[in-house]
Amino acid sequence: MTLPIDPAANLATLIRCPSVTPAEGGALSALEAMLAPLGFAVERPVFSEAGTPDVENLYARRSGNGPHLMFAGHTDVVPVGDEGSWSHPPFSAAVHKGEMYGRGAVDMKGGIACFVAAVARRVADGRPIRGSVSLLITGDEEGPSINGTGKLLEWATAKGERWDAAIVGEPTNPQQLGDMIKIGRRGSISGVITVHGRQGHVAYPDLADNPARGLITLAEALLSPALDAGTRDFQPSNLEITSIDIGNPATNVIPARATAAFNIRFNDTWTPETLQAEIHNRLDRASKRGKFRPDRQEPIGFDLTWRDRPSEVFLTRDDKLIEALSESIRAVTGRTPGLSTSGGTSDARFIKDHCPVVEFGLVGKTMHMVDERVALADLETLTDIYSRFLDDWFA
Amino acid sequence: MTLPIDPAANLATLIRCPSVTPAEGGALSALEAMLAPLGFAVERPVFSEAGTPDVENLYARRSGNGPHLMFAGHTDVVPVGDEGSWSHPPFSAAVHKGEMYGRGAVDMKGGIACFVAAVARRVADGRPIRGSVSLLITGDEEGPSINGTGKLLEWATAKGERWDAAIVGEPTNPQQLGDMIKIGRRGSISGVITVHGRQGHVAYPDLADNPARGLITLAEALLSPALDAGTRDFQPSNLEITSIDIGNPATNVIPARATAAFNIRFNDTWTPETLQAEIHNRLDRASKRGKFRPDRQEPIGFDLTWRDRPSEVFLTRDDKLIEALSESIRAVTGRTPGLSTSGGTSDARFIKDHCPVVEFGLVGKTMHMVDERVALADLETLTDIYSRFLDDWFA
Repeated sequence: MTLPIDPAANLATLIRCPSVTPAEGGALSALEAMLAPLGFAVERPVFSEAGTPDVENLYARRSGNGPHLMFAGHTDVVPVGDEGSWSHPPFSAAVHKGEMYGRGAVDMKGGIACFVAAVARRVADGRPIRGSVSLLITGDEEGPSINGTGKLLEWATAKGERWDAAIVGEPTNPQQLGDMIKIGRRGSISGVITVHGRQGHVAYPDLADNPARGLITLAEALLSPALDAGTRDFQPSNLEITSIDIGNPATNVIPARATAAFNIRFNDTWTPETLQAEIHNRLDRASKRGKFRPDRQEPIGFDLTWRDRPSEVFLTRDDKLIEALSESIRAVTGRTPGLSTSGGTSDARFIKDHCPVVEFGLVGKTMHMVDERVALADLETLTDIYSRFLDDWFA
Repeated sequence: MTLPIDPAANLATLIRCPSVTPAEGGALSALEAMLAPLGFAVERPVFSEAGTPDVENLYARRSGNGPHLMFAGHTDVVPVGDEGSWSHPPFSAAVHKGEMYGRGAVDMKGGIACFVAAVARRVADGRPIRGSVSLLITGDEEGPSINGTGKLLEWATAKGERWDAAIVGEPTNPQQLGDMIKIGRRGSISGVITVHGRQGHVAYPDLADNPARGLITLAEALLSPALDAGTRDFQPSNLEITSIDIGNPATNVIPARATAAFNIRFNDTWTPETLQAEIHNRLDRASKRGKFRPDRQEPIGFDLTWRDRPSEVFLTRDDKLIEALSESIRAVTGRTPGLSTSGGTSDARFIKDHCPVVEFGLVGKTMHMVDERVALADLETLTDIYSRFLDDWFA
């Protein structure tokens, strides 16, 4: 029996499974086939929720005598986009000039392929792992993320599973392997402001109340002053107005209503609750300024509603985990990785409630793009880093 | 033969013609039947233009020895709205508690009915009019105003017609007959700003360029400082933002494009050209401020396009015309009318290029509303005012 010791072969197998969310596409079956001979007990729970497609997930545990490390990730991939623009078909795993092409090459079938190879090499060489290792792999990371990591963690916890640390194999490196470990993420909240005015004819503004003025005043209060200047571990919190909408086609009519939607990525200066209170305060204060209409003293009439569930900010405070991973990267690449909390959300936001979590994987430059690809050399290097980490962390 | 000396009877006849723009509805025929026995030569030109309905108009001239006075107006009316909400059917001319109900009662079949009665009473009494009188009546004032007053003036001018002064019978009085003469109107221009940004993920704002920030900065520059403080004859110019639109449904995406539409009602501080230059200057200056993004120094990328044809501001500078009308109002009502340039545009904007023009008619409170109506007493008073004006102006 051949063990999955070659990360490029593992990745080619996974890329050839067209697992665009929510399709399993054969990817979890292929992964199960790699893990079973390594001594993993594999389960494939399917989760459902009204209004979303059913999604299959995988949990594999290889028990050992010692602490429990989780490797987390996903086999689902984003759509290929304009397939005709790819240099090589997106599910072919073609290799050209030392790079393997395919959707998911770096985000993040590649990370899984390397972690599996790292474990397989130890098994092949007869080197023990001094504890338990599990893979928590979802098919719903690029989609609604409803039937994925969150439910898989609950499901495993209900079975009695507990973890001491987790590593997520997302492509964290901007340019070069070894650039960056992610040790936390900003939180995210979204809201919508609706300003209520009074419709009327533009020639008689005194008989109307233009909500556009109020909206501009409130939008300014959202944007300025800056929420904070950043913290030791995080870049400054940032607010983006994602849409403003009135939808009035008539040039001679003052509209009745205006809305603005916004999203905030926030650092550990805030919790969702303190930040929501700050936004409410800013808007309330601004609504009492009679800006742009010195003759109108009444406050701006508006509603603020919060959309979706907030994502909380988190930071990995486990120095041993960060040090073990940094040291593995340094030993293999000679580079000292930056410790970053930048970028979008990831499934680490679910895992952080169960154990300390860090993220490290391949180079993200081509993720979600046409011609997503990975250097074969990077696959070898990442396999070496993960292998070294299995030594360092369990030590 | 009965002469049309009773303004209430004249108005009832006109209200019973359902002349919602662009329908003639029998209204011009009824008017012609009133004017012919008074010695008017009546013509009914129909004007056409691609993309708009054909519209019938009326021009009636009663020649005399002396200057030439034009009475201008329209027999078309706006739709009735919710007919079931009317206390009396909108084309019935029902009289209840001293008021006549019907669409067009004040805007402005009533004004025409009174002017016709004023002329008819002089004819009936054998009192001469010391000059020529014409009625320039369109069926396209409440609609696109394409096949109406503008073309009727050109048509009459081409026939050799010239006028010394004009009075438009629109309902100019806010509350009481005698409140207000309109002696000019503000101009109007409309524009659209499009701000060009760069789409991206909200978590990576440095890789994107949010056009909402630029739009808010430019919108502020439109609104502040005020364009002017008003002039002797005009209220301050006023800008209203009539719509802002981005149309981005995704909470995690920075949009690529944002637009704002605006309309300015401007006074005689400005011409359309100087005002457009001022707006361009404000936006150019604001686009160079790095507001809300101190880290971004590039100017805001935007386009400004002007919509529709500007309406020019105008002011009646003919003191004799204004004095004659004011004196007639004062003599009949005991009130001194205010001289105003407020409100929306009217067909006076076309007439001002041909002769001095003022506007005076009934009380506008119920215009365009359900239960549009006029006090019968007001019809008598306005007839007296127009009659007196025929003395005073020709004197």
